[in-house]
Formats: sequence, structure tokens, C-alpha cells
Amino acid sequence: MIKRKGILFVLSGPSGVGKGTVKEALLKTMDDICLSVSATTRKPRSNEVHSKDYFFVDLKEFQEMIDNNKLLEWAQVYSNWYGTPRHFVLEHLQKGCDVLLEIDIQGAMQVKNKMPEAIFIFLAPPDLNELARRLCSRGEDSQESIDLRLATCEAEMAHIKYYDYLVVNNDVNEALEKVRSIIQAERCSLNNIIVG
Amino acid sequence: MIKRKGILFVLSGPSGVGKGTVKEALLKTMDDICLSVSATTRKPRSNEVHSKDYFFVDLKEFQEMIDNNKLLEWAQVYSNWYGTPRHFVLEHLQKGCDVLLEIDIQGAMQVKNKMPEAIFIFLAPPDLNELARRLCSRGEDSQESIDLRLATCEAEMAHIKYYDYLVVNNDVNEALEKVRSIIQAERCSLNNIIVG
Repeated sequence: MIKRKGILFVLSGPSGVGKGTVKEALLKTMDDICLSVSATTRKPRSNEVHSKDYFFVDLKEFQEMIDNNKLLEWAQVYSNWYGTPRHFVLEHLQKGCDVLLEIDIQGAMQVKNKMPEAIFIFLAPPDLNELARRLCSRGEDSQESIDLRLATCEAEMAHIKYYDYLVVNNDVNEALEKVRSIIQAERCSLNNIIVG
Repeated sequence: MIKRKGILFVLSGPSGVGKGTVKEALLKTMDDICLSVSATTRKPRSNEVHSKDYFFVDLKEFQEMIDNNKLLEWAQVYSNWYGTPRHFVLEHLQKGCDVLLEIDIQGAMQVKNKMPEAIFIFLAPPDLNELARRLCSRGEDSQESIDLRLATCEAEMAHIKYYDYLVVNNDVNEALEKVRSIIQAERCSLNNIIVG
């Protein structure tokens, strides 16, 4: 008799590396993993849906979630706050469902402290020049913002050692296949299986 | 700059579980992993090539390999001896190549003692009834031999805890995909990557 615990997969990496793209592609091809929905105080982009992409809350509501220990992690990024509702994640894991959390590196490090048994995947750019090219071509950021992100990325790469896996995003399909393999492999790992 | 060490994958499991089938299918679909070549005292068959199929040695040479710690594991099967030359495996790992070793559980436990950093994959039958059905339908074994294999299998299942991964062979294509995922994931594992 084999039972399996739900596994929390934390997909993380520097801003602009393609976490969102890999996450979207992953969810399209795997129906047996559910996405953790973050809370944020930032305004929704035009295509974003409340309680699907994010729980969009105001600053007062966010502060109440922090005060009541309802967030697994939270951080200020530029002028906005982001957090992961603890209840959503634990509820799914307890049901034996795997949960995917796409998150920045500061947040991943907080989750690592609170749930070291989660699986941490670092998505890295091929190099900083390529990251700069991607941030520019996205057209959402000023040059100052891009410079800041690049400097941050360089510092963030030092956190790789706290992760379980490193996936270099040379090509989105290759990166997707690697993340899928990591999820599949962890489901076979004796760390996550109870043989009774 | 990212470098990767070669990884030794040990595919193991009870007799009759389908290790050989999974191994053959794996080698057909992955050209970036090489199969460990065993040493044996048995005589070559007409189609077998020295140092490709086996290292064919005489009993004296085999004994010297044991005495000089040149084998990662060895065993007597009927009147012949089989073993895994350490040099072949280490040479490929040092070049950054991954090596696949398909082996029974006793052999895997010997390798575990000598190379605990290898990745151990336990291929298990769906259940003992199914294993009995497969052994019967193979038509190679007497009822006594089948009974012995089933009793052995039951005892061998207790060794799962020494392995890294458990793959239940319900379906050979699913099992193959899981083993491929494990290989792919381990190649992304920070245990096997040097970020410089």
C-alpha cells in the first residue's frame, strides 16, 4: 500500500526570467497540480482576475493577514505588497494535492524557513545580458527599473544554494520539460511516499 | 558558469519486475546515458563483444579484481561470477557522463555502501499476485522457482527504504517516463551541479 503526501513546489527566480511563462505552460499541460494564489495590494493588470491570478486586497486587509499569521510569506516589492495565504496551501497539501507557488526569491526564502520540506526550483536566466534583453523587449519597465532589476538579479543568484533544483531558462519548452520532470520525480521520491 | 558531475543511476528491483525491459527502452530513447559494462567469468556467446557486452575474464582475474577492490559489487549466479568494474563507472562519471547500472537488490545494496551518492531507483511490481502472473506467463520457471522468487520479492521489498525513488511498474511506458523524469530531475539537482 503506497500513499503520497501533497508536495509544495516553489518555482522561483529573478524578475524577468520567465517564471510566469513556465508556470502558465505547466498548468496547461498538467491538470494534477494546483496553483497557489497570492494576495497582493498592487492593482490588477488588465488581463488579471481576482482570486484566480491574485487575491487583490487593500493595504489594511493585507496588514490584517500579516497580524493574524495568515500568510506563509509576504514582502514589499517596489511599492506593492505580496503574500501567500497559508490556509490555501495547507488545505490542498492535506488533501494530497500538489501545489505550485510561483514567487520571487525573498518570498521563497521565507517559505524555506517555514516549510523546509517544500521543493525549491530556481529558474535562472542564461546570463544577465539575455535577461536585460527580455526585460527591454517586454516594454513594461523604465531603464532605471531594468538597471535595478539586473543588479538585484546578480545578488539573487547567490541564493541558488538554498534551492533543490536549478533550471536554466535557455528555451521555454526545455525549461518546462525540466520542471515537469522535477515534479514527476519528486512524486516518486521516497521522501514523499509512505510505503505501508 | 554551471558544471555538472556525472551521476550513477542504479535501476534495481525484484526478479521478474521488468528491469531489463525498462533499461532497454531507456537506452533506446536517451543517447546521453551510458550503460555500465559488467565483468563476468562466463564464456562469451557468439554475438557478444568484449568490453562492449561484458568484460570477459577468467576466474583468477575475477578474484584479483575482488582482492584489489576493483569491483563495486559482485555475485555468483549459478557457476558464473558477475561484477561491476569500478574503473569503468568512475572514468565515465569523471568525464561528466551519466552511467546506468541495472542490477539486483543485493548488488544495489553493495553499491550503496561504496557509492552512497549514486541515485537508487526501486522498480516494484504492482503487487505480488501480478508478479506471480508475470513469472508464470514468462514460462521459464517451475512452480517451486516461482514460489521462491515470490518469497524473495516479499523480503526484498523491505529494502525500498534504502532507495531514493520508487517506481511501480504498472505499465512499462509509464514506468519508463518516470525513470526518464528522475534522470532529468537529478541532472537539475543542486546536489549534482556546481555553480561557479
